[in-house]
Amino acid sequence: MRPVAARTESRDRIVRATVQTLATEGYAATTARSVARTGGFAPGVIYYHFDDLEDLLVAAAQYTAQTRLARYREELGDVTSATELLERLERLHTEDVADGHIAAVQELTAASSSSPKLAAGIRTQIKPWQDFAEQIAGRFVTRTPFAALIPIPELARAAIALFLGMEMLSHLDTDRARSDAFFTSAKQAATLFDVMAPAPGKLP
Amino acid sequence: MRPVAARTESRDRIVRATVQTLATEGYAATTARSVARTGGFAPGVIYYHFDDLEDLLVAAAQYTAQTRLARYREELGDVTSATELLERLERLHTEDVADGHIAAVQELTAASSSSPKLAAGIRTQIKPWQDFAEQIAGRFVTRTPFAALIPIPELARAAIALFLGMEMLSHLDTDRARSDAFFTSAKQAATLFDVMAPAPGKLP
Repeated sequence: MRPVAARTESRDRIVRATVQTLATEGYAATTARSVARTGGFAPGVIYYHFDDLEDLLVAAAQYTAQTRLARYREELGDVTSATELLERLERLHTEDVADGHIAAVQELTAASSSSPKLAAGIRTQIKPWQDFAEQIAGRFVTRTPFAALIPIPELARAAIALFLGMEMLSHLDTDRARSDAFFTSAKQAATLFDVMAPAPGKLP
Repeated sequence: MRPVAARTESRDRIVRATVQTLATEGYAATTARSVARTGGFAPGVIYYHFDDLEDLLVAAAQYTAQTRLARYREELGDVTSATELLERLERLHTEDVADGHIAAVQELTAASSSSPKLAAGIRTQIKPWQDFAEQIAGRFVTRTPFAALIPIPELARAAIALFLGMEMLSHLDTDRARSDAFFTSAKQAATLFDVMAPAPGKLP
């Protein structure tokens, strides 16, 4: 069993080094050499696990999307209060920016313009996020009197778009004041929502 | 007067070729050589107008942000109906995707990770969009009974984020069905808004 575990660990290490290199140096500077430098291993190791750089970028997109989705599920899985939802989303947003995930996603999306294979790889990663966002959105929409009027898939897509866009703006901003202000207002709106459309079994 | 006009025209031509090259080839492949190939001029012409490639990318960010903002102003300047607002935003969104503007913005944002000068250049371009979004958002918020509760700057930022994120997703999607569905739902919500919070002087 050990060789398989060691092989998986070595592959993971390469993928993590790729995400980090994308975030700090950009996709144009993400080469076998720079990834190896970031991770502290020989460039040749990469080609033992991946066919080429494109293959490695697809794996990096998959890794960053899946590890973050697991983290989002963990934080938001049992949330029933809108106020709590916004508080946790703010925490996740801070992590996404600090850990370089959003910078890596930005770079991968840009790199996908010239790589249909990478574009397809990223698209595959959007589907589980869409399903997850629909599940969370559905939980809150059913509490409102407008449930029948609000199409969950479109609302979920808008929520993903809003979050991606917020992260894109935070990535560009040097100070955090603007996204802090956004979350402050959103949390106020969420508190109002919790009062007007309380969770089942909760008193308003 | 002629030499100045000719100089400006030549500069504009280079900047337009840069936006196009960014959109079709990505920032990693955007070099003096590839821009010159796109525009059909000699690479040396670029250095007559710009110090270096970074300087040219800053000009491209400025050009794409300003020409699109002018177009958005033209389309949305006199809009008072929310339904009309959404119809025009859908048209603008289609243009942004078709003309490669959003792809170019995506590439420039990604490229700014490794260029503080470009990052600063892009940040400068966000401010007029923020002001414009505040102006439009304010026009609609004042019609609602919640006007005092909704902070215009945060709402405007969220609108920009939503639009950026929608365009990022559209850029990745191969089919347009999902963004079409989004606009269809958003237009329905806008129609409801127009009935519930009619524009001044309009009958519901």
